[in-house]
Amino acid sequence: MEGSTQTTGKPIRCKAAICREPGQPLVIEEIFVAPPMPREVRIRIICSSLCQSDVTFWKMKEFPGICPRILGHEAVGVVESVGEDVNEVVEGDRVIPTFLSDCGECFDCKSKKSNLCSNFPFKVSPWMPRYESTRFTDLKGDPLYHFLFVSSFSEYTVVDISNLTKISSEIPPNRSCLLSCGVSTAEVEAGSTVVIFGLGSIGLAVAEGARLCGAARIIGVDVNPDKFELGKKFGVTDFVNGANCGDKSLSQVIMKMTDGGADYCFECVGLASLVQEAYASCRKGWGKTVVLGVDKPGSEVRLPSFDILHTGKCLLGALFGGLKPKSDIPILLKRYTDKELHLDEFVTHEVKFEDINKAFDLLIEGSCLRCVIWMDK
Amino acid sequence: MEGSTQTTGKPIRCKAAICREPGQPLVIEEIFVAPPMPREVRIRIICSSLCQSDVTFWKMKEFPGICPRILGHEAVGVVESVGEDVNEVVEGDRVIPTFLSDCGECFDCKSKKSNLCSNFPFKVSPWMPRYESTRFTDLKGDPLYHFLFVSSFSEYTVVDISNLTKISSEIPPNRSCLLSCGVSTAEVEAGSTVVIFGLGSIGLAVAEGARLCGAARIIGVDVNPDKFELGKKFGVTDFVNGANCGDKSLSQVIMKMTDGGADYCFECVGLASLVQEAYASCRKGWGKTVVLGVDKPGSEVRLPSFDILHTGKCLLGALFGGLKPKSDIPILLKRYTDKELHLDEFVTHEVKFEDINKAFDLLIEGSCLRCVIWMDK
Repeated sequence: MEGSTQTTGKPIRCKAAICREPGQPLVIEEIFVAPPMPREVRIRIICSSLCQSDVTFWKMKEFPGICPRILGHEAVGVVESVGEDVNEVVEGDRVIPTFLSDCGECFDCKSKKSNLCSNFPFKVSPWMPRYESTRFTDLKGDPLYHFLFVSSFSEYTVVDISNLTKISSEIPPNRSCLLSCGVSTAEVEAGSTVVIFGLGSIGLAVAEGARLCGAARIIGVDVNPDKFELGKKFGVTDFVNGANCGDKSLSQVIMKMTDGGADYCFECVGLASLVQEAYASCRKGWGKTVVLGVDKPGSEVRLPSFDILHTGKCLLGALFGGLKPKSDIPILLKRYTDKELHLDEFVTHEVKFEDINKAFDLLIEGSCLRCVIWMDK
Repeated sequence: MEGSTQTTGKPIRCKAAICREPGQPLVIEEIFVAPPMPREVRIRIICSSLCQSDVTFWKMKEFPGICPRILGHEAVGVVESVGEDVNEVVEGDRVIPTFLSDCGECFDCKSKKSNLCSNFPFKVSPWMPRYESTRFTDLKGDPLYHFLFVSSFSEYTVVDISNLTKISSEIPPNRSCLLSCGVSTAEVEAGSTVVIFGLGSIGLAVAEGARLCGAARIIGVDVNPDKFELGKKFGVTDFVNGANCGDKSLSQVIMKMTDGGADYCFECVGLASLVQEAYASCRKGWGKTVVLGVDKPGSEVRLPSFDILHTGKCLLGALFGGLKPKSDIPILLKRYTDKELHLDEFVTHEVKFEDINKAFDLLIEGSCLRCVIWMDK
């Protein structure tokens, strides 16, 4: 049996990797994890994978960057105990935490059109979503901050029921954890031409999604030519080296390659200028630019008014790839089990919890897609 | 019989209103209208209505403003003669010319997804679409320029078959001419909340379209409070005076009125700053901003990157309201005949051709929605 009734209702003393200074190596310390409040769940983390957003907020010196904080938001775990009024999961259930809430009660969560919970909107908050408080304290009794409602770089963490999806325990944890954030999908029509700006984990997941939908052509754009070989495994058919376009802009190159523009452009880096290139690379009449990359706060996308009106193109953003966690994660995991969806190829590295700082080095270096961090058993 | 075989193949001498100096009154002169080239059609104009775009290009001193030019692009006429290889219409047919081409042969025209012809893309050109030449000369033999592939402020004009839609002659010309440009539609779901920025002819047509779709609430935004009474006739249920928001922005007012944003925002003025307010007034999750207004060349719409990703909103433009002229104009006219679509209320003024400059004054004044200009019989 996974959980232990011995710990229910009591603080748990366990190890966590703490970001005490921005950009400095995480420090593994013992901490206390308080019991879950009503509608919260305490879970034992099996493993996490490191995402670019962890790195971004690890480095960030200004709010919403904050220290001391427990980072980590792509993970899988097991329910240790539940707070009051939690009926959705029980001790021992395998669960995936998500930064995106899915309360199931608000207008958005009840609608099929939106994945943006109104009760607990997306925030890079230092607190739990339902109560403005933390469940973590260090051994001195000082509070430690949460990250993206997950904080999985800890043996135990507390997550709101709105941020938990129950999954089958038959799927290997170092695959299922990717669904926690790293793998979005791309819904495109069969025969479409798709351009993906940035072949990191998100970009390759888009390629995988486009391949599954039957896209005719998947053009990957990256400044690292090694990404093309990697991209081929995920369905990328053509490559454009963004650092090597000569006197042409990226969009000029793509307009030429596609004879007038792509049906879909996915921006997976998080750069306003690249969103603009993506928009310019879309075909008039029906081209769609989907923004998936996280840009730095304050940046602006600038589009010529004339183009908006006269090209009929569409620009939209999709947080968590537009997925609704509780309904879509199980569907994606089934596709993995049915061998339709590739997940194995995303995991290029695996480390023990004590080597968590190595995972940061690997992701920053650029050769790593996803590094799985295994908690000590 | 409408046409005359006596004129077929020969230049026609007739009257036209010529813009000889930007912003100066049009001059009614006699001109020669050459016979149509292959795939072109010469038509006798019955009436035109004056559109804001005529005024914009009448005033414009720099290219694509150009003189001497024959303006006018919302009209209805009768086929006088056809050029070689024209099988779609014959002498005497009632036709609506459109600035948007619909060649029926390119990938876009064959697709249901696009209304942006690739063979003859939208251009504010001084020429015919298929051949870079003019069919107009003045009595001195000097060329006169075309406008938006229509140039309807002339007793006779030549239009490419791609820019002509055949219609029933039973519909009053001073109603059918509005479908040539002035009346777009809004496709929204029943029960939607819709905001319309700018209650001119386009904005009111959107209101009319939204009403027909069963929108629950139609909020009109204008700086002229007289527009609200007028708007009520077209389905506008609420009014916001854009000049009277106090210390709040338009989008703040609308977010409050709609408890979190509108399902649809239509920008019908053509101002980048208003597109931004429209985008900010849309509901997260599924809000859609549709740009219908024509902005001045060079202006830019700026959107915060964070909002694009984190709100899931959609921005798109629709030239000619996204309609495909040859298939959609007959549908709209049928709705008018069936008394579903209001057109009568758009025509607030009518003048004789000799009083064409009065139509300009009326539209600029702001009290006029559409002024129909009747050619002399």
